[in-house]
Amino acid sequence: MLQLFRASILHFLDDPIKTTSISKSYNYWEDGLLVVKDGKIHEVGDYASLISDYKGFEISVYSGKLIMPGFIDTHIHFPQTEMIASYGAELLDWLNTYTFPTEQKFGNKEYAREIAQFFLRQLLLQGTTTALVFGSVHKESVEAFFEEAQKQNLRMIAGKVMMDRNAPEYLLDTPESSYTDSKELIKKWHGKDRLLYAVTPRFAPTSSKEQLAKAKQLLEEYPDVYLHTHLSENREELAWVGELFPESDNYLDVYDRAGLLHPKSVFAHSIYLSDSEWATLHAKDCSVAFCPTSNLFLGSGLFNIQAAQKHDVRVGMGTDVGAGTSFSILETLQEAYKVNQLRKAFPEEGYEHEPLSALKAFYLATLGGAKALHLDGAIGNFEKGKEADFVVLDLASSELLAFRLAQCKTLEEKLFVIQMLANDRTVAQTYILGQPVL
Amino acid sequence: MLQLFRASILHFLDDPIKTTSISKSYNYWEDGLLVVKDGKIHEVGDYASLISDYKGFEISVYSGKLIMPGFIDTHIHFPQTEMIASYGAELLDWLNTYTFPTEQKFGNKEYAREIAQFFLRQLLLQGTTTALVFGSVHKESVEAFFEEAQKQNLRMIAGKVMMDRNAPEYLLDTPESSYTDSKELIKKWHGKDRLLYAVTPRFAPTSSKEQLAKAKQLLEEYPDVYLHTHLSENREELAWVGELFPESDNYLDVYDRAGLLHPKSVFAHSIYLSDSEWATLHAKDCSVAFCPTSNLFLGSGLFNIQAAQKHDVRVGMGTDVGAGTSFSILETLQEAYKVNQLRKAFPEEGYEHEPLSALKAFYLATLGGAKALHLDGAIGNFEKGKEADFVVLDLASSELLAFRLAQCKTLEEKLFVIQMLANDRTVAQTYILGQPVL
Repeated sequence: MLQLFRASILHFLDDPIKTTSISKSYNYWEDGLLVVKDGKIHEVGDYASLISDYKGFEISVYSGKLIMPGFIDTHIHFPQTEMIASYGAELLDWLNTYTFPTEQKFGNKEYAREIAQFFLRQLLLQGTTTALVFGSVHKESVEAFFEEAQKQNLRMIAGKVMMDRNAPEYLLDTPESSYTDSKELIKKWHGKDRLLYAVTPRFAPTSSKEQLAKAKQLLEEYPDVYLHTHLSENREELAWVGELFPESDNYLDVYDRAGLLHPKSVFAHSIYLSDSEWATLHAKDCSVAFCPTSNLFLGSGLFNIQAAQKHDVRVGMGTDVGAGTSFSILETLQEAYKVNQLRKAFPEEGYEHEPLSALKAFYLATLGGAKALHLDGAIGNFEKGKEADFVVLDLASSELLAFRLAQCKTLEEKLFVIQMLANDRTVAQTYILGQPVL
Repeated sequence: MLQLFRASILHFLDDPIKTTSISKSYNYWEDGLLVVKDGKIHEVGDYASLISDYKGFEISVYSGKLIMPGFIDTHIHFPQTEMIASYGAELLDWLNTYTFPTEQKFGNKEYAREIAQFFLRQLLLQGTTTALVFGSVHKESVEAFFEEAQKQNLRMIAGKVMMDRNAPEYLLDTPESSYTDSKELIKKWHGKDRLLYAVTPRFAPTSSKEQLAKAKQLLEEYPDVYLHTHLSENREELAWVGELFPESDNYLDVYDRAGLLHPKSVFAHSIYLSDSEWATLHAKDCSVAFCPTSNLFLGSGLFNIQAAQKHDVRVGMGTDVGAGTSFSILETLQEAYKVNQLRKAFPEEGYEHEPLSALKAFYLATLGGAKALHLDGAIGNFEKGKEADFVVLDLASSELLAFRLAQCKTLEEKLFVIQMLANDRTVAQTYILGQPVL
């Protein structure tokens, strides 16, 4: 079945920072045509050039709107949906005061299902079509999540938290149970329809070495699954990791010694990294998730995207709900710009500050996120054969956005205005495999 | 004429940080009644207790909504409306690259009128009912602004920029012309209907000592007008001020020596202040405007609200559009929380970090702003006789907001969730002197 969409269309072909010429990093058609066949991208290009090949087909016309690939959220916690905007804590307090009591509820599969439904709806409302998702420690939470994602044909990655110490008794698993539960989930869900599994130790402080060894065993037995955890988010956390793992050279080294650094390892936050940690991330081809709304909300610190660029480390955007303050990747890009700007007021040695360009930002939200998840063979842009998950942005969703866009001369100016002024109103429709879901 | 409004109602009586008991700092009625008589507050309280006195009157019922006093924006530039979300600069670049070329257009009164209309509409859409507003250097811009604000019966304060050096020739006035133009505007507009005037030197670097002396002369001749300028926003600016005014002890001292510190002086930003500058602000009873979206967007730095509290300096919230990224005071409060949280990652000596409470935040947006502008006799809360400018917030404006509010047990939790999750959708209606304007 062929479906045709006429709108302004933008997608990325490469990282705008890495290409020899920025203009080679994306394609933009002011009046574009996107052709979807059986849920996959069939063709994309200029409307006037392509339309003669599609005479007689019905066209969905989105005048004054912009179609982009669906947004990709590389770090989010579905059981924390109900605790978004909880007051007054930084990381370690946050976990004890809000996170652990909330996550306790997710041993109940029906409760987990209800929240998973609401959570997935929030992602789609914001144009996010793929996410790398923390469950709770309970296998049931991930079961419920995958069942709901499967019903909606979503491309989602999730995993059960592994956590056997330094948390309330009621939330602890054991090295053995975490291994068995994760393995069952992998066998049942990894590669089922569009679903994928991530081995998910919460973070170094809450896993014993025995548990980290079990995580490694899972990665060895299933080399195609992800590893999803937190890294170097907060200074107190950093000091704690130093006490818990005195033999390790640094935080990343804890995971490295445990054998958890492989190309599908995604480390959320990664704020306080040394050059040698960045170099290791590059050498092992690991990815990091930049979560600016969360890093501001918890007062964690300022992610150094220039360090990631310098060391050629894959980066995706993460909302990190519930510490993140929005499900919207658009709003997350806005905060990413601000976090990066604020680095000027707190200069790091060895870095001459550069603003985050809008092209780079939207790249991170789409193809960059797909590359960070090693999913760029399936999603992230509109190359032929990729899965047709995309978002339709209403460029007149507020008077101010429309007024301000009318002043813009270049695509980059327009994208920046969208990045700074768009909100949930701006997402007019989200498509999954060519089907509208809002 | 009596008008009755039934809703949840919140207003503040005092600064929650300064009262002996937080609960004395506000009144909240879950089911409240607000009575307006001839555009002024007549009575407010619990619906069930008051309603018997108003039998037979029609009631506007806002179920599930929250009425608060209109928001107050203590620092914003109306000629910068069209350059909101301009890319990649910090303060001094920003002025040269974007601000000056844009402000040039405001010598044309009809153009200024058009933008003033749009600007005022943006304020009202976001529930802002009073603002302290920079014009451009052109008298015409302020004429147009006041004419439009007058038509809509708004409580607004504005002034013509005084700027006689370090800017493009096409935007410079002279000490004499800035004095004459400002004086004409004061005579025509200050105290006219709800309008007030602010003597508005842009900032120390763009005014000669001769011009600062003229500003002082205006304040002496019209002791009731405001002084509105910028202070200590950015480190490069700070260094420049040091070079331009080598005899001054610090940035604030430039204004102090010029005789510009009086109780109606409002200093935007005030980020890099020494204890002695804070002490002087207190001694002279000056106010500062906290502009978090702008401070993040330009990478200026982190405002220290605890210093303002310690030194008992009046603070209001400012959007600082066009360097600010939103006309919304709600979104500005969200960023205020984040800016304050981030101070944890960059500790200042002498301050043990405290999170910004939601009560304090909404106080700053309403009564605190009114006090910063010495307008708390007229606006800022629902005391009898005050002008009936208020906002109606829709607490179900998004699925997430409604869902999250349903988890809250206390008013403070609710307010914090509104602060973090509300956006322009949340403002259901804005009232000016008891009349709906949206």
